[in-house]
Amino acid sequence: MSRLNQYQDTRSIFFVADYANSKGNYITDADGNVLLDVFAQIASIPLGYNHPTFLELANQPQFQTALANRAALGVNPNIDWVDSVEEAFMSVAPKDMSNVFTVMCGSCANENAFKTAFMYKAAKKRGHDDFSLQELESCMKNQAPGSPDNLGILSFKQAFHGRLLGSLSTTASKAIHKVDIPAFDWPKASFPNLKYPIDQHAEYNQHVEKKALEEVDSILAKGKVAGVVVEPIQSEGGDNHASPDFFRKLQSLCQKHDVLFIVDEVQTGVGATGTFWAHEAWQLPSSPDIVTFSKKFQAAGFYLHHRLRPSQPYRLYNTWMGDPVRAMQAARIVQEIKSKGLLENVREVGDYLQQELGKVSPKVANVRGQGAFIAFDLDGRDAFLTDMRQRGVNMGGCGENTVRLRPMLTFQKHHADILLDTMRSCLNS
Amino acid sequence: MSRLNQYQDTRSIFFVADYANSKGNYITDADGNVLLDVFAQIASIPLGYNHPTFLELANQPQFQTALANRAALGVNPNIDWVDSVEEAFMSVAPKDMSNVFTVMCGSCANENAFKTAFMYKAAKKRGHDDFSLQELESCMKNQAPGSPDNLGILSFKQAFHGRLLGSLSTTASKAIHKVDIPAFDWPKASFPNLKYPIDQHAEYNQHVEKKALEEVDSILAKGKVAGVVVEPIQSEGGDNHASPDFFRKLQSLCQKHDVLFIVDEVQTGVGATGTFWAHEAWQLPSSPDIVTFSKKFQAAGFYLHHRLRPSQPYRLYNTWMGDPVRAMQAARIVQEIKSKGLLENVREVGDYLQQELGKVSPKVANVRGQGAFIAFDLDGRDAFLTDMRQRGVNMGGCGENTVRLRPMLTFQKHHADILLDTMRSCLNS
Repeated sequence: MSRLNQYQDTRSIFFVADYANSKGNYITDADGNVLLDVFAQIASIPLGYNHPTFLELANQPQFQTALANRAALGVNPNIDWVDSVEEAFMSVAPKDMSNVFTVMCGSCANENAFKTAFMYKAAKKRGHDDFSLQELESCMKNQAPGSPDNLGILSFKQAFHGRLLGSLSTTASKAIHKVDIPAFDWPKASFPNLKYPIDQHAEYNQHVEKKALEEVDSILAKGKVAGVVVEPIQSEGGDNHASPDFFRKLQSLCQKHDVLFIVDEVQTGVGATGTFWAHEAWQLPSSPDIVTFSKKFQAAGFYLHHRLRPSQPYRLYNTWMGDPVRAMQAARIVQEIKSKGLLENVREVGDYLQQELGKVSPKVANVRGQGAFIAFDLDGRDAFLTDMRQRGVNMGGCGENTVRLRPMLTFQKHHADILLDTMRSCLNS
Repeated sequence: MSRLNQYQDTRSIFFVADYANSKGNYITDADGNVLLDVFAQIASIPLGYNHPTFLELANQPQFQTALANRAALGVNPNIDWVDSVEEAFMSVAPKDMSNVFTVMCGSCANENAFKTAFMYKAAKKRGHDDFSLQELESCMKNQAPGSPDNLGILSFKQAFHGRLLGSLSTTASKAIHKVDIPAFDWPKASFPNLKYPIDQHAEYNQHVEKKALEEVDSILAKGKVAGVVVEPIQSEGGDNHASPDFFRKLQSLCQKHDVLFIVDEVQTGVGATGTFWAHEAWQLPSSPDIVTFSKKFQAAGFYLHHRLRPSQPYRLYNTWMGDPVRAMQAARIVQEIKSKGLLENVREVGDYLQQELGKVSPKVANVRGQGAFIAFDLDGRDAFLTDMRQRGVNMGGCGENTVRLRPMLTFQKHHADILLDTMRSCLNS
């Protein structure tokens, strides 16, 4: 650690990991200690450490070819690329979402989604695809009308959508992520601050959701928004939930005001909530306009509808445009989820955990979850996380005093029992 | 292609490549045609297709472990990580640059460099590291003073620094990349528009460089800039060069006004110009404040000085913070460049090409280059590129009518002769 600290900031590091000796749901640290991993590289390990399908893939010739010859997919895609796109991305595309754009990370996925919304909105306003000379000239100076100064992305308070300069403008989970960095003056609406358990506070929760939707409606009515971006569960911001009804009405407001409904599934996607995409639980009458992904999928990008494809090439573009290596891994993840019934596993273990967590100790408050995407609040959260790590369970926090469970999709009841037992000894000692 | 077009925008694609059957400087297309590749995946293939060192690495256990267990380097780096950082990045770090921050792509590298500049400038202004309550609260609303609205990054006209919302605000190479996308109202200075060959227009060129520097000086004097970002050769914008003297004086202006001097080596870095970093040719009295990289290095990120490390953790941060797999490849690239004398090769072949290109045809104008990073202007550029591709040479363009050569570091004289011969038959037929 001290050797690394010469070169890189190590102040956030939990511990150095020995991945060669990690396996399944267990991570081994550099000193040989084995920990049950319920954080999984910030929710981004799908199947477990050293999963056989990844190790087998690593020896496949087409995989090694993709590793040794990094394609710029926008100019010279590999002949396997269309297979990867179909097997990895299109086989699990949200209903009627016919297109996908791949990039390198979650923040990039969100920023390109925002660009898509801006282009769509500008084209609608313009009524045709021909740019005026004034638009083309002014944008080169970062000036309106070419660079619109009256159009933004609406996000929610406590949201997290990334740390690049556009995505950071939609993020509002912690001030230390944002302070000193210029931001676009884009609006933020209140996310409903529900009481848990949700079904025991139905009237109150309906009321705060209604108020939040009214706020969204009044912001959108001003006509300065191209898209609304929302997480199915606000993750970094403290695992804040809202009801399916809230999201259905949010989509309906987007349609009313003709702005894109962008669902950020970077953390919730790829099975963590018990459905492949968390937004499936909302039973929307039609798919969102854009769905972004990264993390557990190993590959990042976003789904969009064909009608949102930009009018000209090179408007959404970059050198690598994703990574064929990570797309091949994504295809294996999809295969494994389907063949091993991992969504069912997530639902079963998630239900069990949601039932049992509250019984561990009266200190465990506000247990909430969707599948195995579960959180609870705890006074003295940081000391608890350190203690749990010393007792052999690696966990993470979010928000002010929240503990978030981000197990892999292969986390089973016997793992859950180890977690619960360790929490019992930790909290009752 | 048509099958892919169902899912992804294919309008920019040159051809689908068969990478399994590509080798060295030759790329094979899906129909079995073999092309000499002088574009190299938009300047991002360092050693050639299916290079033995990459194929050998692909079978190494520690490489396969890194592939199967994608680390979130900010919380649980792998035990090999410090070796990769030293072997890949620190062994070729610009003089006295002691720190490196790794990310996933060139745009991300630049945006994190900008964030570093903003944090540095704000801390200087504040005089200490404690944020005021007003700063912490206002930034959560994207408002000043926490989100400063009077501080930007100065870039140059025709520059290209990426396509995400912050980096796009410093980009001004083509309007189609920018139109309809909101931008920060950051300033742009004129890049000296030199006449070529540079040494034959010394007086004129000195004059335009002086004017450009005066413009920079007057913009910086307004006190609204945290950093100046510049490419050693403006690549996407048309391969525009400036003299070492220009860059030395630009650094000096940055020091005078206490703003960071950020050199974007995403396209020029890793040997393409005959030195490991293009800015080595400037013989600066001290290293730049920040140097960004990506592309040929396979791994992306930036070098910085220890004094620029943010005051608190999580200010520069994201889930993956780079990719150990790509860092291991970067270490192999460094090893190969050193052991095979590839910088000398680039200088020799580059000199040869720079001498011979102008003799091919009177249509080839304004030949300019540094090492094998060479360009020339040509009327009817797009038709020429298509014709060359049909004749077995894959090349790319930049700017309005410029052809850019972006060969791999293993491009040799006999490859150059094929290129020159093909150009002769193409331009003189």
